[in-house]
Amino acid sequence: MILDKINMPNDLKTLNMNELAELSDEIRKIIIKKVNKTGGHFGSNLGIIEATIALHYVFNCPDDKIVFDVSHQCYPHKILTGRKEGYLNPEKYSAYTGYTAPEESACDLFKVGHTSTSVSLAVGVAKARDLQGKKENVIALIGDGSLSGGEAYEGLNNAAELNSNIIIIVNDNDMSIAENAGGLYKNLKLLRDTKGKAELNFFKSLGFEYFYVDEGNDVSALINAFEKVKDANKPTVVHIHTLKGCGSKIAEEHKEIYHYIMPGMADLKDDDFALGTNTAESYNKITTDFILKKAKEDKRIIAISPATPGAYGFTKEFRDALGAQYTDVGIAEEHAVAYASALAKSGAKPILSILSSFVQRTYDQLSQDLCLNNSPATILVQWGAISGADATHLGVFDIPLLCNIPNLVYLSPVCKEEYLKMFEWSLLQNEHPVAIRVPFGEVISAGYEDMTDYSMLNKFKMTKKGANVAIIGVGNFYALAEMTAIALKEKAGIDATLINPRFLTGVDKEMLEDLKSGHNIVITLEDGVLNGGFGEKISRFYGNSEMKVLNFGAKKEFTDRVPLGELYERYHLKPGLIAEDVLKALNFAAI
Amino acid sequence: MILDKINMPNDLKTLNMNELAELSDEIRKIIIKKVNKTGGHFGSNLGIIEATIALHYVFNCPDDKIVFDVSHQCYPHKILTGRKEGYLNPEKYSAYTGYTAPEESACDLFKVGHTSTSVSLAVGVAKARDLQGKKENVIALIGDGSLSGGEAYEGLNNAAELNSNIIIIVNDNDMSIAENAGGLYKNLKLLRDTKGKAELNFFKSLGFEYFYVDEGNDVSALINAFEKVKDANKPTVVHIHTLKGCGSKIAEEHKEIYHYIMPGMADLKDDDFALGTNTAESYNKITTDFILKKAKEDKRIIAISPATPGAYGFTKEFRDALGAQYTDVGIAEEHAVAYASALAKSGAKPILSILSSFVQRTYDQLSQDLCLNNSPATILVQWGAISGADATHLGVFDIPLLCNIPNLVYLSPVCKEEYLKMFEWSLLQNEHPVAIRVPFGEVISAGYEDMTDYSMLNKFKMTKKGANVAIIGVGNFYALAEMTAIALKEKAGIDATLINPRFLTGVDKEMLEDLKSGHNIVITLEDGVLNGGFGEKISRFYGNSEMKVLNFGAKKEFTDRVPLGELYERYHLKPGLIAEDVLKALNFAAI
Repeated sequence: MILDKINMPNDLKTLNMNELAELSDEIRKIIIKKVNKTGGHFGSNLGIIEATIALHYVFNCPDDKIVFDVSHQCYPHKILTGRKEGYLNPEKYSAYTGYTAPEESACDLFKVGHTSTSVSLAVGVAKARDLQGKKENVIALIGDGSLSGGEAYEGLNNAAELNSNIIIIVNDNDMSIAENAGGLYKNLKLLRDTKGKAELNFFKSLGFEYFYVDEGNDVSALINAFEKVKDANKPTVVHIHTLKGCGSKIAEEHKEIYHYIMPGMADLKDDDFALGTNTAESYNKITTDFILKKAKEDKRIIAISPATPGAYGFTKEFRDALGAQYTDVGIAEEHAVAYASALAKSGAKPILSILSSFVQRTYDQLSQDLCLNNSPATILVQWGAISGADATHLGVFDIPLLCNIPNLVYLSPVCKEEYLKMFEWSLLQNEHPVAIRVPFGEVISAGYEDMTDYSMLNKFKMTKKGANVAIIGVGNFYALAEMTAIALKEKAGIDATLINPRFLTGVDKEMLEDLKSGHNIVITLEDGVLNGGFGEKISRFYGNSEMKVLNFGAKKEFTDRVPLGELYERYHLKPGLIAEDVLKALNFAAI
Repeated sequence: MILDKINMPNDLKTLNMNELAELSDEIRKIIIKKVNKTGGHFGSNLGIIEATIALHYVFNCPDDKIVFDVSHQCYPHKILTGRKEGYLNPEKYSAYTGYTAPEESACDLFKVGHTSTSVSLAVGVAKARDLQGKKENVIALIGDGSLSGGEAYEGLNNAAELNSNIIIIVNDNDMSIAENAGGLYKNLKLLRDTKGKAELNFFKSLGFEYFYVDEGNDVSALINAFEKVKDANKPTVVHIHTLKGCGSKIAEEHKEIYHYIMPGMADLKDDDFALGTNTAESYNKITTDFILKKAKEDKRIIAISPATPGAYGFTKEFRDALGAQYTDVGIAEEHAVAYASALAKSGAKPILSILSSFVQRTYDQLSQDLCLNNSPATILVQWGAISGADATHLGVFDIPLLCNIPNLVYLSPVCKEEYLKMFEWSLLQNEHPVAIRVPFGEVISAGYEDMTDYSMLNKFKMTKKGANVAIIGVGNFYALAEMTAIALKEKAGIDATLINPRFLTGVDKEMLEDLKSGHNIVITLEDGVLNGGFGEKISRFYGNSEMKVLNFGAKKEFTDRVPLGELYERYHLKPGLIAEDVLKALNFAAI
């Protein structure tokens, strides 16, 4: 195997073109095998193999700097920069993260998992080089999909003024995770259709030198292009036309679904695939069924996704069924919120679905465009939960982010009936911007319809009246509250009061006041970071009283692929551990 | 006066071209007189008078919808839409906000004070129209400066795909607040130089129909252009070339300084102006002197501003002195943070200065690009304080925003010596991203050098050891803590303990633990919103103890030009009120 000889990028430089092409095939097979076993980003990595080889053949890493965007496409880079064991040896399959990671290699500059950042970062790297009188090449590798993000544009606008070396490789596979959305993509198509010769050129309009490579999966064509721009002393774009999923028939044909795969999916045939529709109950299915029903009844309903529809069940079928009542805004979370706000202010009924990890890409728009204007849009916050995710995709920061914005109503349902009732209420009302933290995990059913009137803001629900200890279990963690009550009963005979707060953006002062009689301690459980979150409001409320308060939730930290069980242990998010803490606090109180 | 006849936009339609030109002159005089009296946005409004008249002549507001960007340029619009009294009658000068405000008029769609939002919002307005089968025109009015913001680009990218009416007026006066920065502006210049005829066209590359008006301060030329695009059924850009400050010689010549003026500035002559340099001590001057000194000593130092240099003393002289060690990234806060992060990771020493109200435009970059990567950049958060500002420019949300991000060190100095020591420490260290909340208001001096080693994170400073009550006064409010201690002494003979926490991103557990002996209550004072802020962490810390805690700060609300004294009263941020609350709590404890 040629790869046997490649330990660091320099080893590539002795290979001839045939060997480089053969190396591409080897890496392709390795990635298909590995990702089919572990799951991971598939199509995006298969498309960029040749470009990665060409980059490392022409440039000299780590002296020359390559900044990867979102780093969905860094597996070939990792294989060529000292980490091939993590792709060749099944026992090492989990040795490296799926994203660039400076702690793994000097060839990785940044930990990156959110999109549209590479150009901005590369401008900083290049400017630092210039300030220090150095001369290396600085390269940003960005996909066409990521170009719809505002940060990418801000970066391009600044990169173009740099007056020194910065090379932006636009990896154009004509796809975001789903289809691209936006006027820019017509220009990219025009450029592809004219082999880069069209006069109308987005990149040139911003001031870049521009090169086009039509054969973006041909190592020698890429090497030719990169050699031309190496050591260029002005901002330069190399637009390469690649094939997403290149070399895997099913991934080439189903580009969206094969962007990221679960284990075994590379082995599927087209037919298996069609049969694979999941009909089990899930919050995704509950959500999409509800939206489809409402959208049929009311033409003002419109669903919005910022380029991540697959993550919450907005399948192609769902999108097609909605037609004009669906917008994928592209990777453009800021626009998504402003757009939703304006739709709501203008009589439409927007529903923006967005991952917890990405809602933080649009705080100012939530505050200014949405909440300051009190626009009655509905935002579904998805995947908000403590998890074993990569550090770049944690879902624990949305509560602090959203719950401190004036005017917003942030709701956290504990079961499907509550979720649907909140969702329906949000669509019917015209007074408040509403966000709903969609429950995460298996569907929980109360078994009966929720009849709550959510226009009575900040009314917590006492589900069980007990004494001594009151447990406020937020959303996903209401079940943990129930289990904790059982543990307290078993360990100490305590009949704890149980509360489902439902509202994250305000406290039920009356109920909290009432708890003062008959209770010595209130505990809060939230499936997110404690700092700035829900529990601290309860602590503040009781600051001036005899009531003890214990807040349970995640610590303020970026965890990186830490198993969930370990995190629960670390944060004392287990019934037995919580009960112990509570009893300890109560003993202390009794002294 | 022609304006006498104009009460609503429709009244314009009976005027001939001469009368419209005369009306422009009248409005210009009125704005100059009014803003010279009250202060306000000056140059931006003077440039847009003719375009506003032409818009209201051609279109039919409020049926047709005009969305103003940042609304620095809405005074002529307010004058023409039923609010002229607020500009004609000195007694009514403060009747209307300086920004668009739906509560004032049906012709204002959104409350807007942050930039780059108009196109996104207009796309939502247009889509809502389409969903409801309506037909009115939707117009976004955006300045060239605002086009550098990512949200504007995300909006444009989506607007271009709308397949229906949306008209984007680009008001190009070749200026942001300061000079424009970015590759885009070369293209705008090319388009101006070629009267819109250049093939290379940023707007066309995104898919827009494009029209150019060179005489952007000529009502009839503008009317011609707007009539051409009225009822257009596809996304259209009208690029108008206007003169910032048009009609005021000094504003035309000093475009940056006359963007927003203080009372009397319109009367200045060039010479007065040159003499007007302020040499008094201020945090702006302390900051710029320090940066200049450090930048001379170390070529790796680089100051960064996202298009608001004037707000914190980054004058033209300062910028010129720094040369390549200064970057104005344009209105591009997201890029600013990613850029600073990459500079810091690559051996440079970036100092990003940003207003509290605008730091919230870049939460994700602070979290992902900066803090996840632990990049040792320095961020100066300016104007963080409770104030009588407009609802769109409050400086109260930065503490909750920043203090809950892992890895960040957010410092809040109480005097110039602390500020300089923290600033110096931040530049010397390589371990942490550091933000400093620059003190707001008059300079306070301790009178001696601060010798603290800030690498010992989260060490609070006990400035006076007392008993019973401990007061933690954060940053600007440390002085309030001192006055509260005096009030407690006078009212109840209490010798309160005084603490300057300095760190907002962590608590000094040891000191807080020690306070448990000898103290019954801890109070926190912070110059920002309570929810998610510093004080709640102290409440959480003491949740499991006998210690009482009272948090003082702003309520979670958007206040709009409420006098500061009134806010202090409302939030009990006066020594006497705080002392009363404390004594009440202590009595309660004594029962």
